[in-house]
Amino acid sequence: MTIKIALAQFNFTVADIAANTAKIIAAVEQAKQLQADVVVFSELCITGYPPEDLLFRNDFIRQAEQAVLDIAAGIEGIHAVIGYPGYRDGLLYNSAAVLADGRIIAEYHKNALPNYGVFDEQRYFSAATQTTLFSIKNTRLALTICEDIWQPGIIEKNRQAGAEIILTLNASPFHAGKVHQREEIICGQLQSAKTPLVYVNQIGGQDELIFDGASFVADRNGEIVFRAAEFEEQLSVVEFIDCQPIAGQIAAHYQPVISEYKALVLGVRDYVRKNGFQGAILGLSGGIDSALVLALAVDALGADKVEAVLMPSRYTLDMSIEDACLEADALGVKWHIIPIEPAVEAFSRMLTPLFAGSRQDTTEENIQARCRGVVLMALSNKQGKLLLTTGNKSEMSVGYATLYGDMAGGFAPLKDVYKLLVYRLAEYRNSLSPVIPPRVIGRPPSAELAPDQKDEDSLPPYAVLDPILALYIEQDLPADEILARGYRLEDVNRAITLVDRNEYKRRQSPPGIRITPKAFGRDRRYPISSGYRGIYKG
Amino acid sequence: MTIKIALAQFNFTVADIAANTAKIIAAVEQAKQLQADVVVFSELCITGYPPEDLLFRNDFIRQAEQAVLDIAAGIEGIHAVIGYPGYRDGLLYNSAAVLADGRIIAEYHKNALPNYGVFDEQRYFSAATQTTLFSIKNTRLALTICEDIWQPGIIEKNRQAGAEIILTLNASPFHAGKVHQREEIICGQLQSAKTPLVYVNQIGGQDELIFDGASFVADRNGEIVFRAAEFEEQLSVVEFIDCQPIAGQIAAHYQPVISEYKALVLGVRDYVRKNGFQGAILGLSGGIDSALVLALAVDALGADKVEAVLMPSRYTLDMSIEDACLEADALGVKWHIIPIEPAVEAFSRMLTPLFAGSRQDTTEENIQARCRGVVLMALSNKQGKLLLTTGNKSEMSVGYATLYGDMAGGFAPLKDVYKLLVYRLAEYRNSLSPVIPPRVIGRPPSAELAPDQKDEDSLPPYAVLDPILALYIEQDLPADEILARGYRLEDVNRAITLVDRNEYKRRQSPPGIRITPKAFGRDRRYPISSGYRGIYKG
Repeated sequence: MTIKIALAQFNFTVADIAANTAKIIAAVEQAKQLQADVVVFSELCITGYPPEDLLFRNDFIRQAEQAVLDIAAGIEGIHAVIGYPGYRDGLLYNSAAVLADGRIIAEYHKNALPNYGVFDEQRYFSAATQTTLFSIKNTRLALTICEDIWQPGIIEKNRQAGAEIILTLNASPFHAGKVHQREEIICGQLQSAKTPLVYVNQIGGQDELIFDGASFVADRNGEIVFRAAEFEEQLSVVEFIDCQPIAGQIAAHYQPVISEYKALVLGVRDYVRKNGFQGAILGLSGGIDSALVLALAVDALGADKVEAVLMPSRYTLDMSIEDACLEADALGVKWHIIPIEPAVEAFSRMLTPLFAGSRQDTTEENIQARCRGVVLMALSNKQGKLLLTTGNKSEMSVGYATLYGDMAGGFAPLKDVYKLLVYRLAEYRNSLSPVIPPRVIGRPPSAELAPDQKDEDSLPPYAVLDPILALYIEQDLPADEILARGYRLEDVNRAITLVDRNEYKRRQSPPGIRITPKAFGRDRRYPISSGYRGIYKG
Repeated sequence: MTIKIALAQFNFTVADIAANTAKIIAAVEQAKQLQADVVVFSELCITGYPPEDLLFRNDFIRQAEQAVLDIAAGIEGIHAVIGYPGYRDGLLYNSAAVLADGRIIAEYHKNALPNYGVFDEQRYFSAATQTTLFSIKNTRLALTICEDIWQPGIIEKNRQAGAEIILTLNASPFHAGKVHQREEIICGQLQSAKTPLVYVNQIGGQDELIFDGASFVADRNGEIVFRAAEFEEQLSVVEFIDCQPIAGQIAAHYQPVISEYKALVLGVRDYVRKNGFQGAILGLSGGIDSALVLALAVDALGADKVEAVLMPSRYTLDMSIEDACLEADALGVKWHIIPIEPAVEAFSRMLTPLFAGSRQDTTEENIQARCRGVVLMALSNKQGKLLLTTGNKSEMSVGYATLYGDMAGGFAPLKDVYKLLVYRLAEYRNSLSPVIPPRVIGRPPSAELAPDQKDEDSLPPYAVLDPILALYIEQDLPADEILARGYRLEDVNRAITLVDRNEYKRRQSPPGIRITPKAFGRDRRYPISSGYRGIYKG
């Protein structure tokens, strides 16, 4: 017996039920033309993922349920498996419906609800315990949803219930290395369950999250015999003969730095597109961060949609201006120079009576950064273009950034990218075509808010800082365990003190793209008022 | 048999384990002097509530566990019941320990874990199912924690297990009317369970949350026979004779507007104190919002800790300046005038080449607001004073505020206060002593960012807008049900459109004080990129 299963790996928009429905209907038609017996979509494809607190709105759930019925009405000559939120007996479930012959012929409700990291599913959904099987051409297929197959036991439970092929609808967010972890855990379980599995993931950017696709089919031994591309929409058909999948194209995984770059490009593109912006603008300083963001923006949106603004001050070196111009020209974007001195001087005069007798400190540096923020926001407001914030994760961690200054903006592409990775991404981008001048990569990082300022005057070198930050923030390691890895006490305590102190800045930072296992977003929920001091006290 | 139970209603600081421990030890001593047999503290009193993702840090949990042992070591001649997070068999529980004779003699792990609204307890804790009873003077006392006694069944389960008195450790956040709801639900359950209950709640502000205390003792019929004050620390002893509580002081509930005012004062005071600020500053416009925030700040911190800044522009009316001066003088705070024109003009000149040919729009209004933001942040940075943001919930809902402009600041006391309530709170404050000039209350609200501007030029009147917002935001009602309450289609659709569109602004707003059942904080998690359009489409 031959069954053809289509994997529908698409980019849905949260809460745009009409557009998602249209996309599903078109994909079903395409799958029919490819003679698929069944087409499988991703988790909550009707609403996009994650819809967050929209799930508390009755009208929203009713619209989603109606969309399922509307799609079902048009289904003929194929089965379609779609994900949606729906009520049963007054409880809300994360569900999958099998549509055939104009109606819903089977339904499954997610058993395992993730409530960790970026996930809040126990906030919204009830957990079911039943399995759901349905048959096509005398073959018994089981339905599962995302977290289900990460939990030991649920694949096995379906096998025992008689499943011959397991279908899984997913919305599994990207972080660096996640695709390997995902395949390892899931395929590992198949080796004991001896059941082939069809894994469909969505792609796209949704606020902070990136979904990477990489949908796959594994055989009963957990061998991957088909894999869809990462970060791209794709509808593919895999043939099963007597429940054995026939090997097809296996898209290679991208190298880490490439997958991170692609995730960032997709994140910028989808944030701009899904929020209806006319394009993007950014402040170009001549430093590495804004150079990389400019390249990402151009790769995401095209040069004609991106505008760069150079805003030199008295502390800006000539080479910074020269390099910024070179970058903008290399990428073919429109750019402007607006020196900030007139505004800085105006504020200086306005504040003189109150600041008389006080010493210069970071206040004066912040005023410069905030003048740039005012200029950039004015251009953003006037043109309807998204202001991209150029700060990186190292800076966000230690608060080396000015609130309402360089932190101003609607979206922060590098918010989850440590400084060392900024360099690797810049070098990767230059390997495609030279757009970032070598001097920008080579010179010591500086905020240029004071004479001869260098980041390393205030912070440990990034080669030391970044790994300490990753251990403290992403792995929650205490100071003594970080010291045990060989870092110096003063570097560890300096980094930890700054991370502890700057939660208030992060709370007001724009959203950014998550590419690590723990970003400063929904997956790190820290109090601002807090007596916690993580430093080593000896 | 007589038992004396002390209710320890205190203000703990999240993650300041040393300070919380010292406070607990002092309170135990005080309870002993009052000859209490047992002193009951609030939920997670060792760590403060809610510790959020600090609960993922092993070092933090170990410190909390050690603090429990340290406190236990000093306990003699009394029982103490304290709340803390602790591991058992590798799982983390929200626990209560009974300390006596230098050790832990009993332990309870919370059964019902709230995971809705502001609560994320299933993110952190495992749920237990066991009851825990312990005896003092042959009386069997049961332990429960907060959500446990809101759930039908758990009080009854403890009664069946033999409980004669139920002790409950709580961290139950305030919103207007919550105290009545709390007593009604809990006392209602006692009427069938026929078991007296001791309810201990913490007080204090923790970022967005206010805890209101109002600890109480109810008898077996659900009658309240003792109630501690709201919003104040208090240690009280209630005597039980043969498990019957002896009636004591029953602090009256505050009227709604008074409780809201007290909550706001406590919230400002604790945010400033717990974050170590030297005081607070704010921009005083001559409007009602900043006038109220000034009064709150002075009532919270004292006039000597508060500073007001008047920042007139060409659109500021003389009466605004006059009234702002009157307010500042009435409250005895230091104030400064810094006209913003020099900065506005500087930006105008800087942007002329780019804005040539474009029409004036909100961009120019935003520049003014952002110039004020730069001035205020400079003063805040220079002096180490918290900048209080003066915007209200009506504005936050519809985005009638400038990001990095009037939204700049570390804390937004009125973020969850609708405009109509701002007026009621101002009138209440004036009833204590006249600090807000009547003209400020009487004149039509204006942002004064353009000639003759009035809020009602852009928005429905607040008497219409505020109830629509509450129905849409707090009750999640769809447009058709709001229309059914008699509001006009254009007002409903205008309000909903603005709420839907402005999530990006709210995401970058400072934290504020929650006084309604749903604030723009941890309890409303909306996507920014979203196709949801709540308007009535006919």
